Amino acid sequence: VTVARPTPLSGFPELLPAERFVELRVLDSLRASFELHGFAPVETRAAEPLEQLLRKGEIDKEVYLLRRLQARDEPAEPGQATAEGNAADGTADASTLGLHFDLTVPFARYVLENSGKLEFPFRRYQIQKEWRGERPQEGRYREFTQADIDVVARDVLPFHHDVEVARVMAEALSKLPVPALTLQVNNRKLIEGFFSGIGAPDVPAVMRVIDKIDKVPAEIIATMLVSEAGLDDRQAELCLALADIRASDSSFVARVQALGVQHDLLAEGLAELAAVIDGCAGMNTDRFSVEADLRIARGLDYYTGTVFETRMAGFESLGSICSGGRYDSLASDGRTSYPGVGISLGVTRMLLPLFNRKKLTASRSVPSAVLVALPDEDARAGSDAIAGQLRANGIATEVAPAAQRYGKQIRYAERRGIPFVWFPAGPDNPHEVKDIRTGAQELADPATWRPPAEDLRPQVVRPEA
Amino acid sequence: VTVARPTPLSGFPELLPAERFVELRVLDSLRASFELHGFAPVETRAAEPLEQLLRKGEIDKEVYLLRRLQARDEPAEPGQATAEGNAADGTADASTLGLHFDLTVPFARYVLENSGKLEFPFRRYQIQKEWRGERPQEGRYREFTQADIDVVARDVLPFHHDVEVARVMAEALSKLPVPALTLQVNNRKLIEGFFSGIGAPDVPAVMRVIDKIDKVPAEIIATMLVSEAGLDDRQAELCLALADIRASDSSFVARVQALGVQHDLLAEGLAELAAVIDGCAGMNTDRFSVEADLRIARGLDYYTGTVFETRMAGFESLGSICSGGRYDSLASDGRTSYPGVGISLGVTRMLLPLFNRKKLTASRSVPSAVLVALPDEDARAGSDAIAGQLRANGIATEVAPAAQRYGKQIRYAERRGIPFVWFPAGPDNPHEVKDIRTGAQELADPATWRPPAEDLRPQVVRPEA
Repeated sequence: VTVARPTPLSGFPELLPAERFVELRVLDSLRASFELHGFAPVETRAAEPLEQLLRKGEIDKEVYLLRRLQARDEPAEPGQATAEGNAADGTADASTLGLHFDLTVPFARYVLENSGKLEFPFRRYQIQKEWRGERPQEGRYREFTQADIDVVARDVLPFHHDVEVARVMAEALSKLPVPALTLQVNNRKLIEGFFSGIGAPDVPAVMRVIDKIDKVPAEIIATMLVSEAGLDDRQAELCLALADIRASDSSFVARVQALGVQHDLLAEGLAELAAVIDGCAGMNTDRFSVEADLRIARGLDYYTGTVFETRMAGFESLGSICSGGRYDSLASDGRTSYPGVGISLGVTRMLLPLFNRKKLTASRSVPSAVLVALPDEDARAGSDAIAGQLRANGIATEVAPAAQRYGKQIRYAERRGIPFVWFPAGPDNPHEVKDIRTGAQELADPATWRPPAEDLRPQVVRPEA
Repeated sequence: VTVARPTPLSGFPELLPAERFVELRVLDSLRASFELHGFAPVETRAAEPLEQLLRKGEIDKEVYLLRRLQARDEPAEPGQATAEGNAADGTADASTLGLHFDLTVPFARYVLENSGKLEFPFRRYQIQKEWRGERPQEGRYREFTQADIDVVARDVLPFHHDVEVARVMAEALSKLPVPALTLQVNNRKLIEGFFSGIGAPDVPAVMRVIDKIDKVPAEIIATMLVSEAGLDDRQAELCLALADIRASDSSFVARVQALGVQHDLLAEGLAELAAVIDGCAGMNTDRFSVEADLRIARGLDYYTGTVFETRMAGFESLGSICSGGRYDSLASDGRTSYPGVGISLGVTRMLLPLFNRKKLTASRSVPSAVLVALPDEDARAGSDAIAGQLRANGIATEVAPAAQRYGKQIRYAERRGIPFVWFPAGPDNPHEVKDIRTGAQELADPATWRPPAEDLRPQVVRPEA
């Protein structure tokens, strides 16, 4: 295959092997965390009918449509969604396929499609690529990976699953090789109840203004609460006082109560949020914390209780890298409703800025811990056999590609970061293995020798951490 | 998200969680095999400019094009490939993006794009989704996963890498929980040299006919060799005699030589094929074999030496599930050429028919080995703590969703295939754990108890194997 000029595509990031090692280590860690808590793996197809992708409405412009290049050669298959709907005139119809832009819409469809084969409550994790046609910038890509967990039930999902989902993602996040993370939790009942309790005439309008609080100075927010949400100055002041509350324990409850607002929904939300924060007690370290943050609103309108966002220290401009919440109806087929609670980690959003700023990489660019040297080209079978013995003990090994002088073979290993070079026994010499970082060389038996555990696989390296 | 009617999409298969466990186990196994041999992980973007996808020519009609739904709202970005090229009139231009239909084309582009950052010879594995708009049937899907390994060099790639690639994939395949596999190897130099040696006037025409040998009876092939490739009866007979040769050791060399055909390229091909077969000696078991099969031609024209195909016993109608070979130029930027040798396993093609015919599944549909029962709703914190102790020992655990009577909680575990139910200690009773398959119940300490190793994770189950 001859490819004249490779074309970098803005928004479609690709990794070098050392970075891909780190990404795989992160994905493995997430998967292990999720499975330890009983979450089952699901993968959905990349494409969904456009009509299902557009149900959320507001982000329709980000969808990538699919069209078969030669679609017009074949008749449409009746009764079946196809990708050729837009072939004739460039427009999209209901049977057009698009690439999914999140994992929630396809998971909702999967739950309905397989509801007779799943046991509820159903816990699943899903780690996949997604595509959005938005303008690329740091933290925003056209192709990216997310890792979602959700618990979904039939008809009723008890509140304790909100606590569960927070704990599972908190545990998963706390194990990642990244800067300090803060999982921020709030509750829509709490803030909606509060806004109702102060007598706000248009609660959704208050929510929309409060949602901008990270981007707009507080005094402008106060003005907007009056002009756009119809509050008086005292009400606006109370909203800002609420949004100012954050705590890593349930002390926030007393601070909210001290504002003197009464509402049943507020009380319910306070109790729920306290339960989530108490449930995550003991998980806080210097690298990870869970806190109640009463500013968090989540713009999308389908959350009905707990809401989550996550900030990464030093990378606040990325916004939230891990978000989610409780929705009373993840999916519904008209007869049955499926409430859910879930949270989604933006793996690419979290890792790419770390890779690009050289804050995260791997100790080597190949899996090999050992390079078996080649005394001469006729000795390849012997070197292959040594490599086979090492591999049988789980040691990733490659054999030198050519019988150059040993100095060149050592430099081959050096360029790849391979820590050990094995010199095969000959008529006059025994097996020896050299740590090329220290120069230390020792006699060794290929059947029993093992490298130090930390050299067995490429290590995650955080240059400035 | 309300989804009225879920729409199954023909050609876009999805798995239930138990099947996905098996697929993940297979992918983990492949990855471990490839890494043991020093192959580094690469993942490429899903989309490539259409002009690069179509360089192979013949399969252009299978490409899915991408188009942003709202692309016409924005001006094109000059000098950059975009997905909006086909928005205006439904036609595709050079800057249109399409989904990749294999991993070779994107890898070739990746090698050129990153040639200054990679060390050659470069070994990589790549396990990803691909998309082809062809008509779905068993073994052929519109979305599917392949696992590729390739070794690519700058300018010259020594032949021993052909042996290496065969051995690595053979070792990887031999560890998979599938019916018996046969890796069939041939060499294009061998058959081209043979056809030249018999005096065939049009060697490519002979190759095209021989490539149909699995689908067409031998007597028709003989007729076609005469009518379509210009051979005489004696030449056609020799070609069929060659195609009839297969062997799991290098005894095929003498059988070819006995046909009395002389050609330098034939001799070179025979030596190479013997080296691959000898290099895989000792890997044959009752579940896996490597053999020289002199019928294998591989229709695509870019292979120049070793060629591979793979058959799965009882699933011969799928054709080859794992194919590849040597190509003198994987990629070229005009100045430098990158020869390669590689092989690609059709993971979906191999597994889906096994899932659909109920020949492969997992022992349970959840990762959980233990369900911690809930004596009453107030005891949730205690049951959560026990679950936490078990998880700290690597035991996947979930807590019962509701404090129903124990019989119902046991049935909750049963429906999911969870083998153990943990009954928390109370004021009058110690901790006990029950194997719900046998009914055996024993005293246990959550800090130290461990299930049998085979119950720790879902097991791969082969019902009729």
